[in-house]
Amino acid sequence: MNPVELIKKKRRGDSLTPAELKFMVEGYTLGKIPDYQMSAFLMATLFKGMSDDETAQLVDLMLHSGAVVNLDKVKTAKVDKHSTGGIGDKTTFLLAPILASLGYSYPTIAGRSLGHTGGTVDKLESIPGFQCHISLKRFQELVGSVGLAFLGQTDEICPADKKIYGLRDVTGTVESLPLIVASIMSKKLAEGAEGLVFDVKCGSGAFMKTDKEAEALAKALVATAKRCKRKAQALVTTMNGPLGHGVGNAIEINECVAFLRQGPADQPPEPELWNLTLELSAALVAVAEETEGAKPSPKKEVLERIEAVLRSGQAYSKFLEVVSLQGGDTEALDQGLPLAPKSLVVEASEKGYVSEILGESVGQALVELGGGRKKAGEPIDHGVGFWFEKREGQAVDKGEALVRIFARDLKTGELAKNMLIDAIRLSPRPPSKANLIRTRF
Amino acid sequence: MNPVELIKKKRRGDSLTPAELKFMVEGYTLGKIPDYQMSAFLMATLFKGMSDDETAQLVDLMLHSGAVVNLDKVKTAKVDKHSTGGIGDKTTFLLAPILASLGYSYPTIAGRSLGHTGGTVDKLESIPGFQCHISLKRFQELVGSVGLAFLGQTDEICPADKKIYGLRDVTGTVESLPLIVASIMSKKLAEGAEGLVFDVKCGSGAFMKTDKEAEALAKALVATAKRCKRKAQALVTTMNGPLGHGVGNAIEINECVAFLRQGPADQPPEPELWNLTLELSAALVAVAEETEGAKPSPKKEVLERIEAVLRSGQAYSKFLEVVSLQGGDTEALDQGLPLAPKSLVVEASEKGYVSEILGESVGQALVELGGGRKKAGEPIDHGVGFWFEKREGQAVDKGEALVRIFARDLKTGELAKNMLIDAIRLSPRPPSKANLIRTRF
Repeated sequence: MNPVELIKKKRRGDSLTPAELKFMVEGYTLGKIPDYQMSAFLMATLFKGMSDDETAQLVDLMLHSGAVVNLDKVKTAKVDKHSTGGIGDKTTFLLAPILASLGYSYPTIAGRSLGHTGGTVDKLESIPGFQCHISLKRFQELVGSVGLAFLGQTDEICPADKKIYGLRDVTGTVESLPLIVASIMSKKLAEGAEGLVFDVKCGSGAFMKTDKEAEALAKALVATAKRCKRKAQALVTTMNGPLGHGVGNAIEINECVAFLRQGPADQPPEPELWNLTLELSAALVAVAEETEGAKPSPKKEVLERIEAVLRSGQAYSKFLEVVSLQGGDTEALDQGLPLAPKSLVVEASEKGYVSEILGESVGQALVELGGGRKKAGEPIDHGVGFWFEKREGQAVDKGEALVRIFARDLKTGELAKNMLIDAIRLSPRPPSKANLIRTRF
Repeated sequence: MNPVELIKKKRRGDSLTPAELKFMVEGYTLGKIPDYQMSAFLMATLFKGMSDDETAQLVDLMLHSGAVVNLDKVKTAKVDKHSTGGIGDKTTFLLAPILASLGYSYPTIAGRSLGHTGGTVDKLESIPGFQCHISLKRFQELVGSVGLAFLGQTDEICPADKKIYGLRDVTGTVESLPLIVASIMSKKLAEGAEGLVFDVKCGSGAFMKTDKEAEALAKALVATAKRCKRKAQALVTTMNGPLGHGVGNAIEINECVAFLRQGPADQPPEPELWNLTLELSAALVAVAEETEGAKPSPKKEVLERIEAVLRSGQAYSKFLEVVSLQGGDTEALDQGLPLAPKSLVVEASEKGYVSEILGESVGQALVELGGGRKKAGEPIDHGVGFWFEKREGQAVDKGEALVRIFARDLKTGELAKNMLIDAIRLSPRPPSKANLIRTRF
């Protein structure tokens, strides 16, 4: 087989045979096909797409390019959620203990922050002692015994996806639906999940800006998951500003602890984070029941069970259990992780309503504070972050606090403050509020 | 500027600014932009095209990436023909002496054969002693004094085109109209030509298989030449089988010598080669007159002048003069260059008509004989080749010779013979014959 002929075949819009796609993907992963041929192939794919068969086969090739977690010994349904990413999105730390408390398994393989996007591993590492880099064997054991565990992404998992994603990032070929789907799906299958819920964000703060784009991705994810013999649901959810109050590492973990232990009573969870967590939990229960071949429970009953494991403290106990078993200091966690010492406040410049918070700018301000990375491998300051007192749609008086900044020093704090001032828009009238859940598939 | 953003800009179908295109092309030529980003950019260009301004600017960037021949001291109009390539196409060796005899200048920069396509330099080197690798200065002198000269393509000329073409060849991005146009045009401008005639081949033996494709290329070449302030005409010509009788190196030069000296009388030039040479010569005279600001001569008169310089021996003298000045053995040339010793004949298997000769297969058979290269840099056997006794449309009796093979040994000769048997189709009825000149622009 000749790579040039296969590039031309895709360029014409024809589908590659399984043998041809294997030749391209394996050849590239093994270094036999050079970057410049793969990037031309990826660009042709971006223009011409892939058939459902090709996409499913690409998932399979990426999946089997590396290690696959074997959770066969775990008898409960293994479920996981994938979010297309949003500033302040911390639902993983809530969903995993909730689902484990409900008797399902929730294996999580996660990455680090880069650029304006946060990283699950970094957030967990803000808990003193927490160790994400455990062996695959230990990960399998924890999922089996506790019902949840967190594993930092390694080179062992889906190396073909890692290499192809790295090339897409520098060749303008990220935005291809089949390539996005295959990248997401291969990693989820590698961690052993049987039932999947996709949280496809849509809005100014999301990767997908329009309903059309988000719905296309949601449909493609569900279709490919089903072709890969997994149960799946997708929710298209609104994502403009950050999710919840906290943006940062320790501060997001603190917000999750307060959420899980349902207190203090005068600080209820931020409503959007609460609603999204309950909706995603219910969807995960639905795919778990489908996986186990159980009769689907009425949603009302499912929501009651979810609220019950939160109120009873079961979900919080599960979280403390896994943190402890992965080396984390549960006492420090329970007392609240320390935040950076310099506090600054962005105040409303006039009376009105918060009309918009630019999520991407908030993410960039966090990087300036030291809470994110400009380049892979850089150290991170877990204590810095933001606490959004006011969210889109809320009324504010002149001088009222919009957001509190926790900085290591005043210089970076002032820099971040100026960025946040630009990122938060006020208007004299309340903005129209979009539904949190836009569509479901 | 960021290459990824420029790739995305082209991907969206937007035009790059002159500064942006310069950043990409110069950056790539200097090795600052890697192959994998350029190949993604080229594939995006293949899908989205380039504006006329971008194409003209790409020509300019390629042209000025290297040395440009300065023919300012040559006062007569400098003209040249470019053909999109065909098996047995030897018109360059005819047009150059004809135009020089008519008082114009004809500078030629040419390449070597690769794969099934022949190379002007290889054909000239079948003349003992002929030296194509002369200095730019010597080339300028010869064009000035004799009116024609042949220069082998060097790394000095259009290095950006050379590097980009090499990448297109291995990334399935050859077939992009603006990239084809810029590659052709930059080299023609680098050799100092003021008036250009494009022979765009169309048919089963050509790069462009359909009239639509060929006409699009012809129009784009003329438009870009005019934008680059050159006089230009394009002829779309039929190209199915080889052009003329001879295919090879020495054998094509011998055919040209017979053509130029108009004899022997019992061996008139092959009619298609004769007609094409006269049509291209007339078009070259037209652009030369336009370049010099002269009143255009009637075509009938131009054709008479062309035939006159052939009949008088002037054109042949010009050819002998330049061959001699470039170190070639004119006596050997005049006596007929020696051909390989083993002669084989492909005979008609039945009575009928030659309906088709597959040009590409003929080119590949020549490579098997040693008359072409599989890889750049390989040595070549100048003496091997084919002499087509019968051409498309001609009637043949069973057992009549269709083509004579000149091979170095019987083994390669038999191999080539079997390939030619497959490449020549006979039919019981005469095939429909397409016009040689299909359209003009």
